[in-house]
Amino acid sequence: MARLDIALAHSYRLLNHGPTVLISVAALGRRNVMAAAWCMPLDFDPPKVAVVIDKSTFTRELILAAGEFAISVPTRAMLPRVVAAGSDSGRDGDKFTALGIDTFAAQQISAPLIEGCVAWLECRVLPEAHNEARYDLFIGEVVAASADSRVFSDGRWHFGPDDDALRTLHHVAGGAFFVTGDMVTGQD
Amino acid sequence: MARLDIALAHSYRLLNHGPTVLISVAALGRRNVMAAAWCMPLDFDPPKVAVVIDKSTFTRELILAAGEFAISVPTRAMLPRVVAAGSDSGRDGDKFTALGIDTFAAQQISAPLIEGCVAWLECRVLPEAHNEARYDLFIGEVVAASADSRVFSDGRWHFGPDDDALRTLHHVAGGAFFVTGDMVTGQD
Repeated sequence: MARLDIALAHSYRLLNHGPTVLISVAALGRRNVMAAAWCMPLDFDPPKVAVVIDKSTFTRELILAAGEFAISVPTRAMLPRVVAAGSDSGRDGDKFTALGIDTFAAQQISAPLIEGCVAWLECRVLPEAHNEARYDLFIGEVVAASADSRVFSDGRWHFGPDDDALRTLHHVAGGAFFVTGDMVTGQD
Repeated sequence: MARLDIALAHSYRLLNHGPTVLISVAALGRRNVMAAAWCMPLDFDPPKVAVVIDKSTFTRELILAAGEFAISVPTRAMLPRVVAAGSDSGRDGDKFTALGIDTFAAQQISAPLIEGCVAWLECRVLPEAHNEARYDLFIGEVVAASADSRVFSDGRWHFGPDDDALRTLHHVAGGAFFVTGDMVTGQD
């Protein structure tokens, strides 16, 4: 596979279909990763995202220290690790090691990006104390984006018949997910 | 089909998988409907949602007047109307009439709910002037929810082999959508 840099103005397309994502961060000599279903684009250019990160999470503690986080879009093949990343706590030990999650370096931020995912967005927190305190809502500006060219190129997702293991996930509840399905096109 | 009331604490499950939705509203003797891909749950109980509604939209003008809005989750069968609802403006005339979109009355709010959809959330705006002005971000509390029992019951989506036309939509860009695909379950 090849990782392809994505134009910032196209980066919203990596999240527009509503996949569940992995949020990763490094700070204070620690690192962590968690799953998040509540994550969406918030603006096109400069691109922004909104993500809900509960007060109880170790990830939140590290994001507040780092002022940065990464979004990685996981695949069907990663399902057991996504479920585990969403239920275990990084306070109990390094989740990457425990779950066998490999990482690689981001371009613009210190947060590790997750190997095996198909899209990555590097974000700097736009501090919004009221939203963070009242709604657990964090807003980030996307400062770099990349994708797996096997399934995203020319600004488009294109899952082919051999790409089922690379399709993205959409959490419903309790460890049940929908896989991203067929593409359809509507004409106005 | 039968419309089933959904417990408020389960209403997030209607949006958790990230579908593109229709936002509808009635105020000032007018009504409108628009498509929104940037809409997500924000809390479980009491349930809240976050949705991006651009400053240029007629829908926003009516929501600010009404203090309420409805979310309807459209289906693959509704694709052409979803695309049209996302590109036409209600300022130019009633979109419901123009697009042949039928409605029915909500339980708790004045906004019309959209026939042919498979889930509905009735929302009251939690006024957040800063978020609305800076991010076009509106936050609502869900005060009633219902779903089409053919595809959602016992707190779960269940799209069967005969339900392809009822599957929900996930906008990518430019009128291209993914249909919600297979369900998979991961064990931690």
